[in-house]
Amino acid sequence: MYSEDGVRELDRQECLRLLATAHVGRVVHTHHALPAVLPVPFCLDADFAVVVRTSAESQLAGAIDRVVVAFQADEVDPSAHAGWSVVVTGRATVVTDPAEYGRLRRTGPHSWRASRHDIFLRIEPELVTGSELGARRLLHEARRTS
Amino acid sequence: MYSEDGVRELDRQECLRLLATAHVGRVVHTHHALPAVLPVPFCLDADFAVVVRTSAESQLAGAIDRVVVAFQADEVDPSAHAGWSVVVTGRATVVTDPAEYGRLRRTGPHSWRASRHDIFLRIEPELVTGSELGARRLLHEARRTS
Repeated sequence: MYSEDGVRELDRQECLRLLATAHVGRVVHTHHALPAVLPVPFCLDADFAVVVRTSAESQLAGAIDRVVVAFQADEVDPSAHAGWSVVVTGRATVVTDPAEYGRLRRTGPHSWRASRHDIFLRIEPELVTGSELGARRLLHEARRTS
Repeated sequence: MYSEDGVRELDRQECLRLLATAHVGRVVHTHHALPAVLPVPFCLDADFAVVVRTSAESQLAGAIDRVVVAFQADEVDPSAHAGWSVVVTGRATVVTDPAEYGRLRRTGPHSWRASRHDIFLRIEPELVTGSELGARRLLHEARRTS
């Protein structure tokens, strides 16, 4: 189903499938009563939790432990007028279990930074929503050219 | 100045200069008490307001008129561990003046969608913040290889 403005809502499974193809996402939280948005490296864990890597000294580490945050990723091709956007909303927790930490050091997202001490944050996929953008226009064009 | 985690805060002028190079940004607002994030086409107007184009029927059009929102754009190269992220926070207003609307139809951001009736939203650049990501690592590498 496409809405009037060419946006198609995606179901949870479609969202997670698209999310798994991305490497950069954004943690959206509140900082000093203002919205804060920070791009981070991430991966989806086996249970579809979002695992984010950041420096232990970063503002993010202190700000979002045990807080409900939004995590967003997208891929948009402006020239094709098409793309997708997915938002995962859920509680973030710093990974403190040593075995879990060791596993994520080996298999989790790579660090972008020069930090000596990185931490991992898990964001539970409590709510997963997403949309396909410009889908109707693509459909129109597909019909016109076929 | 670089912080411990290799993030360098950008000043307003640096932020606006980087923002002008991007074509896709994200409007961050609150929808049903949850954070909502939507990628949109945009451009910077002459007065550095962010001009966003969306369908008149879109959820965004009704949700953010006269509301303070955040607008975020970034460019991150995960393989180079480098990039930037800028957030503009300010009041959003639907453009209703016909002359202004006509001007933006001609010179503003292109639509991604199949909507017959698009609107423009201006987001005032009341607060402009941003950071350069992974800068310290790049500096380190530059020193090591020079």
